[in-house]
Amino acid sequence: MTDMKKWCIAVDVMGGDNAPEEIVKGAVLSAQAFSDVEIQLYGDEEAIKAALPTDIPQNLAIVHASEKIATDDEPVKAIRHKKDSSMVLGAKAVKKDAADAFISAGNSGALLASGLLIVGRMKGIERPAFMAALPSLTTPGKQWLLMDSGANAESKPQHLVQYARMGQAYVESVFNVNFGRVGLLNNGAEASKGNPLTKQTHQLLTEAEDIHFIGNVEARDVLSDMADVIVADGFTGNTLLKSLEGTAKQLMNLIKETLKNGGPSTKLGGLMIKGELKNLLKDIDYDKAGGALLFGVKAPVIKCHGTADANNIHYAIKQAIDVLDAGIVPELADIFAQQAAEKKQRND
Amino acid sequence: MTDMKKWCIAVDVMGGDNAPEEIVKGAVLSAQAFSDVEIQLYGDEEAIKAALPTDIPQNLAIVHASEKIATDDEPVKAIRHKKDSSMVLGAKAVKKDAADAFISAGNSGALLASGLLIVGRMKGIERPAFMAALPSLTTPGKQWLLMDSGANAESKPQHLVQYARMGQAYVESVFNVNFGRVGLLNNGAEASKGNPLTKQTHQLLTEAEDIHFIGNVEARDVLSDMADVIVADGFTGNTLLKSLEGTAKQLMNLIKETLKNGGPSTKLGGLMIKGELKNLLKDIDYDKAGGALLFGVKAPVIKCHGTADANNIHYAIKQAIDVLDAGIVPELADIFAQQAAEKKQRND
Repeated sequence: MTDMKKWCIAVDVMGGDNAPEEIVKGAVLSAQAFSDVEIQLYGDEEAIKAALPTDIPQNLAIVHASEKIATDDEPVKAIRHKKDSSMVLGAKAVKKDAADAFISAGNSGALLASGLLIVGRMKGIERPAFMAALPSLTTPGKQWLLMDSGANAESKPQHLVQYARMGQAYVESVFNVNFGRVGLLNNGAEASKGNPLTKQTHQLLTEAEDIHFIGNVEARDVLSDMADVIVADGFTGNTLLKSLEGTAKQLMNLIKETLKNGGPSTKLGGLMIKGELKNLLKDIDYDKAGGALLFGVKAPVIKCHGTADANNIHYAIKQAIDVLDAGIVPELADIFAQQAAEKKQRND
Repeated sequence: MTDMKKWCIAVDVMGGDNAPEEIVKGAVLSAQAFSDVEIQLYGDEEAIKAALPTDIPQNLAIVHASEKIATDDEPVKAIRHKKDSSMVLGAKAVKKDAADAFISAGNSGALLASGLLIVGRMKGIERPAFMAALPSLTTPGKQWLLMDSGANAESKPQHLVQYARMGQAYVESVFNVNFGRVGLLNNGAEASKGNPLTKQTHQLLTEAEDIHFIGNVEARDVLSDMADVIVADGFTGNTLLKSLEGTAKQLMNLIKETLKNGGPSTKLGGLMIKGELKNLLKDIDYDKAGGALLFGVKAPVIKCHGTADANNIHYAIKQAIDVLDAGIVPELADIFAQQAAEKKQRND
């Protein structure tokens, strides 16, 4: 691998339910699809080699890691003690510019800690947050962002305002949306609704001149293309994300079961619409959107679902490339550094 | 109406998007279905009469109300000033034992205030809460309870423990469940997960010997019959409820659209499974379960969806009758009064 690649993506192959096989497979898919990108696999060398095809793509590199972080490891402790783990080594590669982005399907808390403690926060960002890209069910192909989808169980109004700013910049740079509408997840449409956090956030978002705030959005409307970015504290955002995923999956399962167990004409009808149903499932496949981007750290760090398979990993790598191509992270770093400087000046 | 009826249900016919016509229609359905129950209609007499059929059931009574509370009225103010409104008169009927239960599809906040300020809290209950009965998608016909589904935007751990107790008693008395499993809505399965509220609640629920606590339940699993009662603060519970409703509705709409706009064989297949799909929709129809019961006040008060139609009102009336038949409200009043007395004794 002597030629210079456009980007270099570090992948933790030891995290997630299907590690390392599916993670390696996904990385191979991406290496084949993006020949101008280098993919670095962090993990047990023997296990990686066993999962690789005989014909290894030229743009795939292996970095041996003797340890791995488990799902039930205490996050900060794991990061501090397992210094030769695939997650720590991958995050360190980003820190020292040996890689441009980092992807893992492992322990969420540990990945958050890697982002905060190894990759490092952007200047001016108080709390990095997970950003999930989700589909609209009313506008096919349209995506919207949920932020924070689960990094911080507790949040303050000013954190949500930062999420709004980050999300708006993301949809404008990466999705090429002209006017990124920001909504606040709340339990009613009126400004007076909500808990103390959402009431105060509503006020701050209304006052922020650089944010295109469209007001409160209720959980029942998030899939109807009401806003391009929806901000919430990490606890509520995580509840919303998981309930959207769970409801969609269980409803589709129920439909499949119903059609399979119905009378002869139902069965035949089910067979006739099978293709269409499959396409529909693909459209609403949340995993297609990649993983949750840890936004607010100095480089793209992406968390894939613990159940991620090869395709999910491939999409997450594609998402990392999109984010790098759009230059959104340095752009945001500039914006927040400038805001932090202005704030400091006002306070001096 | 000289003969004694088993129960008497007061219905606010002026609240909701489809008032008064659909509310009156629903009340007529119930009056026809339950001849041993009296239904009292509170609202504008002329409007009610115009909406009634020529053949008025014997067990239907009209109580004229010259005012009505609007959706955007400030709840407590509305209750205090609109003394001749359908909502205030209906709640007062329950207070003075002229009715056994009260149903409204009007202003949620005002109905909550009516429950608190007119009907009154049960002794020992700090915060009454809305309880929604929702379907399981994995066990057909099975329902589970979400509590608080939206009464209190802020909650303390001890409130959630009271919800657990009320919910458990409800499923055991009304659903005849032998061992009512109580789960805590949280953003992870482990006891250590969550925000300060859920962490403290987890501890209290673990310690409470009379509660069958099964641990944390994530939002993605609530539809898979994991627990019979799921407790949450009102803000998170409301987010969950609305996202379940929204996702199910929008997904079914998308499926219908997809089948309608597909090629000839998809269209034909769609027609063949139409009946089955309709049945399925009926099974997951949240409105079938009635409305949200305001639990913790001295009599059953039920909040129907603002979009309630005649069938929803009819189911809510049926739900009120089930609750009255089960005797759950006096049973709970005894339990909480006894607990309050014990607590007082310990403190004296």
